[in-house]
Amino acid sequence: MYRTHTCGELRIRDVGNKVKLAGWVQRIRDLGAMTFIDLRDRYGITQLVVDEKSTKEIFEQIEKLGREYVIQATGIVQERSNKNRNIVTGEVEVFLNDLNVLSPSILPPFTIQDDTDGGDEIRMKYRYLDLRREAVRKNLELRAKMAHATRVYLNGQNFIETETPVLIKSTPEGARDFVVPSRMNQGEFYALPQSPQTFKQLLMIAGFDRYYQIVKCFRDEDLRADRQPEFTQIDCEMSFVEQKDVLKTFEGLTRFLFKEVMDLDIDEFPLMPYSEAIENYGSDKPDTRFEMLIQDLSETVKGNNFIVFDSAEYIGAICAKGCSDYSRKQLDELTNWVKRPQIGAKGLVYVKYNHDGSFKSSVDKFYSQEDLKKWAEVLDAQPGDLMLLLSGNKKHMQTALGELRFEMGTRLELRNKNIFNPLWVVDFPLLEWNEESQRYHAMHHPFTSPKQEDMQLLEIDPGNVRANAYDLVINGVEIGGGSVRIFNKELQSTMFDKLGFTREEAENQFGFLMSAFQYGAPPHAGIAFGFDRLVSLFAGLNSIRDVIAFPKNNAGRDVMIDSPSTIADEQLDELNLKIKLKDQ
Amino acid sequence: MYRTHTCGELRIRDVGNKVKLAGWVQRIRDLGAMTFIDLRDRYGITQLVVDEKSTKEIFEQIEKLGREYVIQATGIVQERSNKNRNIVTGEVEVFLNDLNVLSPSILPPFTIQDDTDGGDEIRMKYRYLDLRREAVRKNLELRAKMAHATRVYLNGQNFIETETPVLIKSTPEGARDFVVPSRMNQGEFYALPQSPQTFKQLLMIAGFDRYYQIVKCFRDEDLRADRQPEFTQIDCEMSFVEQKDVLKTFEGLTRFLFKEVMDLDIDEFPLMPYSEAIENYGSDKPDTRFEMLIQDLSETVKGNNFIVFDSAEYIGAICAKGCSDYSRKQLDELTNWVKRPQIGAKGLVYVKYNHDGSFKSSVDKFYSQEDLKKWAEVLDAQPGDLMLLLSGNKKHMQTALGELRFEMGTRLELRNKNIFNPLWVVDFPLLEWNEESQRYHAMHHPFTSPKQEDMQLLEIDPGNVRANAYDLVINGVEIGGGSVRIFNKELQSTMFDKLGFTREEAENQFGFLMSAFQYGAPPHAGIAFGFDRLVSLFAGLNSIRDVIAFPKNNAGRDVMIDSPSTIADEQLDELNLKIKLKDQ
Repeated sequence: MYRTHTCGELRIRDVGNKVKLAGWVQRIRDLGAMTFIDLRDRYGITQLVVDEKSTKEIFEQIEKLGREYVIQATGIVQERSNKNRNIVTGEVEVFLNDLNVLSPSILPPFTIQDDTDGGDEIRMKYRYLDLRREAVRKNLELRAKMAHATRVYLNGQNFIETETPVLIKSTPEGARDFVVPSRMNQGEFYALPQSPQTFKQLLMIAGFDRYYQIVKCFRDEDLRADRQPEFTQIDCEMSFVEQKDVLKTFEGLTRFLFKEVMDLDIDEFPLMPYSEAIENYGSDKPDTRFEMLIQDLSETVKGNNFIVFDSAEYIGAICAKGCSDYSRKQLDELTNWVKRPQIGAKGLVYVKYNHDGSFKSSVDKFYSQEDLKKWAEVLDAQPGDLMLLLSGNKKHMQTALGELRFEMGTRLELRNKNIFNPLWVVDFPLLEWNEESQRYHAMHHPFTSPKQEDMQLLEIDPGNVRANAYDLVINGVEIGGGSVRIFNKELQSTMFDKLGFTREEAENQFGFLMSAFQYGAPPHAGIAFGFDRLVSLFAGLNSIRDVIAFPKNNAGRDVMIDSPSTIADEQLDELNLKIKLKDQ
Repeated sequence: MYRTHTCGELRIRDVGNKVKLAGWVQRIRDLGAMTFIDLRDRYGITQLVVDEKSTKEIFEQIEKLGREYVIQATGIVQERSNKNRNIVTGEVEVFLNDLNVLSPSILPPFTIQDDTDGGDEIRMKYRYLDLRREAVRKNLELRAKMAHATRVYLNGQNFIETETPVLIKSTPEGARDFVVPSRMNQGEFYALPQSPQTFKQLLMIAGFDRYYQIVKCFRDEDLRADRQPEFTQIDCEMSFVEQKDVLKTFEGLTRFLFKEVMDLDIDEFPLMPYSEAIENYGSDKPDTRFEMLIQDLSETVKGNNFIVFDSAEYIGAICAKGCSDYSRKQLDELTNWVKRPQIGAKGLVYVKYNHDGSFKSSVDKFYSQEDLKKWAEVLDAQPGDLMLLLSGNKKHMQTALGELRFEMGTRLELRNKNIFNPLWVVDFPLLEWNEESQRYHAMHHPFTSPKQEDMQLLEIDPGNVRANAYDLVINGVEIGGGSVRIFNKELQSTMFDKLGFTREEAENQFGFLMSAFQYGAPPHAGIAFGFDRLVSLFAGLNSIRDVIAFPKNNAGRDVMIDSPSTIADEQLDELNLKIKLKDQ
């Protein structure tokens, strides 16, 4: 037997007992006559001690130990004279009788501590050492706990967890697929699923009634900070339900998770139409932890011969509370921030509402104190506040103001990680026009049902058709999204038309689904949660990478195992494939 | 609201209530003045009724219904005059007031009943209809239940469910990998995991202590009846354990599943050394539900001038109870059965132990009644039994006798699906010689630890080194397998040597693992259960296909979605790949 107890188990009740522990050497403190060793495992840290009563041999053995050695320690539990109240085992220590090195360690490339000295790259290369740090392991433990709580809730609601295939079929709609060459069917490929969308709909047609799966999905995208080529979804679908049933069920799941995992009681989630989110927050992912709503000043500011505003489609503003003392330098920096290509504003107009009630703005040439006071009224600004205005194309400037609002919220520390503000954004547009391809794309996906009352617009004004689609947004992060689905072959066929599919393409890619619709398809709706994001939100982290055991870097590489990598020529031959030379 | 109740919910207590149901039309019985409709959903069947009190309109609506129509039915619950005790809703029916067709159905290609008229191929093409059949859906419900029970048990034992990556690195050892071309790293490939083996070992090195995952794995093999290119494992690993700890934990899991899911109490699992399994059962997957042990007759039968036996390395036999009346035709058929290439025996010697105590054999020319009586004694045969002998190469004939034993067990109906006989097969050889490649292959995998006491054989007689490897076998099916792992860089390096890896190949493919061993690797061991097989065993099914929602056929095709399929030239271009012409 390797151990009688874990390193997190011993208490004062165990004093006098002979125990055997196994774990990693966290720290050795040599005080001359006494030496202390902190022995660590997943469950905790226990102090081992040798002193003047110990044998010479054991001192010699300890001499040879180093950090991260794996040892087995046998001894007697004794009460500590100097108790450590910070750890659960801190009242006791083990007086070492015997020591056995199970596995030595060379010097780790960084320290195994919460505040490590290792940079990102080295920690990724030695991810197995990074995972030893409690701060990192805790995230993975949280993830496991959340997955289990999700299953407990959904099983309790009669959902059947059903595995759908990973080797499926490539469809060009949506993001880029990862493909898998088939050896048995030469020249043909499987694709890895971007989501189990069509399969879960087929399960509804199969009468499964309620399906879920915590499932890996794949997208071959150019990676941004918070994207991974493989990611995990809580994927769900329900039959004989309307939108409100889905929202109720998954609001229930979310609140259950907050309660189970964080012991937090969260209020009912408000509903916000997409149009309102864009208007007030400049985003379909509003962070409602703070106000600072966007106001439309277009009517208020025009007609003063300021050509920039007079010629603009839209002038909008936010009010940053208590920022009237911003320096010239700060304002210049903010101006440069909005002019970056990611934001793309032409410039920034500011108005300081000074503590003495006067105004100082970058457009004083055009606007009187009286004019600026009117702006302040619209924005509900008070002395001490700073008003920030952007002008230009409406859609673009709403988004830019949304980003600016976010940024100011961050700078003013209004985005408190310990507050959670979930809401449902609803009534999304069904379609969005894509300039590049000169056609409509599905805003959610091609299986989303238009709203009944907007159906007559589908032929005459498709851009204004709203969908029965909904997103769960928490603290400015899209945690989940879903929709009521089309369950009728003709409507599905019309949708594919609108999205520019030829009949043949639609049949070739989704014929099996449209065929299935003919055999009695129930009304159904569903949702998928981005599980990685949900966990990182709960963990108070900014990146999903920290809640994934073995993540890939921004080039899609696993630097630890050095993958992807070249494969043997025989493998390529078997697959009937050739790698093209660069100039072919 | 689509429904107030499911079709499995109404009872006598609901009589008089107005309800709304939704589901599929299972059956319509038109009795003239009355018509009955069986309405089906996942939860059950409820009878709807119209009679002389019903309106003409509703009769007209019913006229238009057909099988598998999805309807919404509103009405009043009433007690049935003719109760159906076979279904839980059989005491009541719903008197139909209103009917709404949600989705019509064209005629399904086969009947949606437990005993369907659809062949395998058509049911796979319309798998979403096949899944409507209760017999099929029940298997998937059982699967979900077993997955959840597994998680409950393992979470309770402090295992952390941890997701490992799906896009990993190709390694030629073992079966063939599926590969995934990388667009961002041109000319390079990911591979899909055959198992998360190296990652779970890294998690042990990371100090996770106890890991599990119910996870999809992938093998690009030529498919046999019971293989799928993607399959599911319960994958586990533990630190600071010996073999017996692993067996105890997973015997615990298995017994927990039997109890939770089947309400069966299973005795402790016996341990059987590999050598004994081969000797007595001719298989490392012995079906111990019946005896019929293989006996070595080599000593007994030699020396009677029967050249076939005298020249054979090994003569073994089984005794088929009560089969002495087998006809000439039956014996010929059995002889042909063992001569098939899959079995490969040269011939079959039989001895009938007649009811009158006399013997009749195919070798009466060489052996006296006295001789044959001796054989009967070795085989513990009684009058009425049939002895069957095979001779030749020992290893080959043991396997052949194992197959014959299996076959006779089936014919004699000794393989009762309601009896479950689990056992651990232990002490597997570490290596097996491969004639084709003229080198040793790892019997389990290259990470398996040799037995301490056999370590000195590693250099001088590698074929006789036993491993700390174990299989869980139930009813002749390998349900799980695992081993104690190597956790030392030098030993791992030696193993790769023995398996014919060059230092460079070993470093290139498994360098990250051997590097990890240097930083304090704990002793660890693990196991993986074939989850599909486990579920099909519990379900009493012969094929894993029946417990997979959307399986592939023997050519690796999903005939429903028609995958794999060709992909667009642009996709190939982006991946820098070319499909070779046949004659290139």
